[in-house]
Amino acid sequence: MNNFEFYSPTDFVFGRDAELRAGDLVKRFGGSRVLLVYGGGHAVRSGLIDRVKQSLTEAGVGLTELSGVMPNPTDEIVYKGIEAGRAQQADLVLAVGGGSTIDAAKAMAAGIPYEGDFWDFYAGKKTIDFALPIGVVLTIPAAGSEGSGNSVVTQVSSRKKVSLRTPYWLRPKFALMNPELTYSLPAYQTAAGATDMLAHIMERYFTNTPHTEVADAVGEGVMRTIIDVTPRVLAAPDDYDARATLMWCGTLAHNGICGTGNEEDWASHGLEHELSAFYNVTHGAGLAVVFPAWLTYMSQHHPAKLHKWAKNVWQADSPAEGIARFKAWLRSIGMPTTLKELGIDNFDLETINNHVHETKGEVFGAYLPLDKERTRAIYQLMQ
Amino acid sequence: MNNFEFYSPTDFVFGRDAELRAGDLVKRFGGSRVLLVYGGGHAVRSGLIDRVKQSLTEAGVGLTELSGVMPNPTDEIVYKGIEAGRAQQADLVLAVGGGSTIDAAKAMAAGIPYEGDFWDFYAGKKTIDFALPIGVVLTIPAAGSEGSGNSVVTQVSSRKKVSLRTPYWLRPKFALMNPELTYSLPAYQTAAGATDMLAHIMERYFTNTPHTEVADAVGEGVMRTIIDVTPRVLAAPDDYDARATLMWCGTLAHNGICGTGNEEDWASHGLEHELSAFYNVTHGAGLAVVFPAWLTYMSQHHPAKLHKWAKNVWQADSPAEGIARFKAWLRSIGMPTTLKELGIDNFDLETINNHVHETKGEVFGAYLPLDKERTRAIYQLMQ
Repeated sequence: MNNFEFYSPTDFVFGRDAELRAGDLVKRFGGSRVLLVYGGGHAVRSGLIDRVKQSLTEAGVGLTELSGVMPNPTDEIVYKGIEAGRAQQADLVLAVGGGSTIDAAKAMAAGIPYEGDFWDFYAGKKTIDFALPIGVVLTIPAAGSEGSGNSVVTQVSSRKKVSLRTPYWLRPKFALMNPELTYSLPAYQTAAGATDMLAHIMERYFTNTPHTEVADAVGEGVMRTIIDVTPRVLAAPDDYDARATLMWCGTLAHNGICGTGNEEDWASHGLEHELSAFYNVTHGAGLAVVFPAWLTYMSQHHPAKLHKWAKNVWQADSPAEGIARFKAWLRSIGMPTTLKELGIDNFDLETINNHVHETKGEVFGAYLPLDKERTRAIYQLMQ
Repeated sequence: MNNFEFYSPTDFVFGRDAELRAGDLVKRFGGSRVLLVYGGGHAVRSGLIDRVKQSLTEAGVGLTELSGVMPNPTDEIVYKGIEAGRAQQADLVLAVGGGSTIDAAKAMAAGIPYEGDFWDFYAGKKTIDFALPIGVVLTIPAAGSEGSGNSVVTQVSSRKKVSLRTPYWLRPKFALMNPELTYSLPAYQTAAGATDMLAHIMERYFTNTPHTEVADAVGEGVMRTIIDVTPRVLAAPDDYDARATLMWCGTLAHNGICGTGNEEDWASHGLEHELSAFYNVTHGAGLAVVFPAWLTYMSQHHPAKLHKWAKNVWQADSPAEGIARFKAWLRSIGMPTTLKELGIDNFDLETINNHVHETKGEVFGAYLPLDKERTRAIYQLMQ
């Protein structure tokens, strides 16, 4: 087991009506003027934004709204939010939405008090040493951003989708998690979210670090739970317990508890971010295509940990059988497993393969470091 | 799944030389004058206290020492610590030791800034609304106090051993966890610690709450890991990875992650606290006697959840077989499973049984509420 730091200070308030505690929690964490960040559409029509605003107002908290955050958020919306937050002298950023909204809100929280260009942090030019506190009302269980110190933003000009990982500043102070808010999530988005959760665990699980028994046991348990519960959620979208189970799995998948002491991989996320950035596909659906290809490549070149994964997660006797069951499960929940099924007909392999190495470096990934030849082979397996 | 709040804000710094970061972490969490609390003996002789003091001094942090905390800490040592902390105007309490030291330090952290008698909190007369920040250098993996908001203190005059649970104030800000510090733990204490960990998970696992799939999966995984790794630790006390695995299991067993959304039980801890308070036995060894008796009673009167436990934790076909394997495992790691083996020859059943209800109330426990008749039957099963 490697040395590690596990720091997940978020106050998770989980259950029915959790969003009504927004005012309380904002005040507990020192907020008085909130920048309220959301996408729009359903959150407004469903009355959720009104309920959150009422809770803030009843607590005597001021607010400015920034709506219009889109999936795969860009630097453009972040700049808008920073401007709005500064104008208001916001002292807390509250995101209402899923990973995209939260990730954009995190970038705003870092950018509002920073004198330079927030992209400095994502470009690796500067390290965040202060950010406004961040709160979350979660509506899409998937990205795990409510419990992580990470934020993914795409720079429009360069098409670079950059994942920033921070130990402290970008971890939300609180997350309000009401499973009922996820009843209306479309099946495709629900399934893509579940796939994203599995991927977050697998990026940690596939490691060469010896003696990761605890993290493995926790990760396997959460993976099996996701695999069991996702079909139940799809069959009955308003099954409270099933929705609750899936929602909490999404947090555990990415707050770090499944990777304590492991050297983590994250190559598959790197490969997928290119698909999202170039073809604007749903991140989780992209992972449904990337991960089986990555696993297939590993089964041929570095199968070590795949045996345990196949046995303990899929009750399979071999990596090949485990991968087959994983793909069958993905299909059963309506996920694509090839680029074509993902809707990418004109896949430009060489451009994407060059670009992924421009973004991630000549070689990336820890389980089996990937150079250009290996990533090309993995992209080919997606076709 | 019930509504829940999961808040585990402790910064866990885990690995070799973790104790050398004491100065850094104290400063990160705003400390400048530390009350350094420890037991004595081995922590001093091994040079650990000197290393911690050097780290504090190098960081420019002032300190006052309070040594002499004993197992099953009493209000007397807490009063001493409060006096020392006030004299020094301490702004952070740093515990070096195991659960007893940490629990005493927590009581001091609440008591130093409080105008009244700190026992008010343990007697349920007052709720803590402020406490000094608490840091930990862990030397005994068992109680999980490094990641919990709990503190157990015994009042000498009444012999009441009271467990205080708080959501916020008593959770340590940081915990420095170096598995090497546990190499010298005697086998008996190591095994008692492992038993305590299992008990912490079982107190949460045995619940009537439906749909606790995630918490069950995590808890079962950590239980199986404890069961596998404890014999390895006993066979090779300086096996770093085995010690590290057991140490981290102790934290996960009690920081709340194994009970998210469950109504928890805690009856067995109530039954055991009487044994510790009256006969001064090691808490974990007491639990090794209490839990099999509690399980045996439940197998006869409310076996529901025991089937899943037997199957998933012990690969057993029935509760009886699961209990038999649990007892065999306890014996294999040198734990007692009867009061006599625990060294209690003159067990005064009626006095203890009356006293447990004075402390815990007429009826206690959630899985199957226990009145005086039921607790008597369970105590009888320990003989």
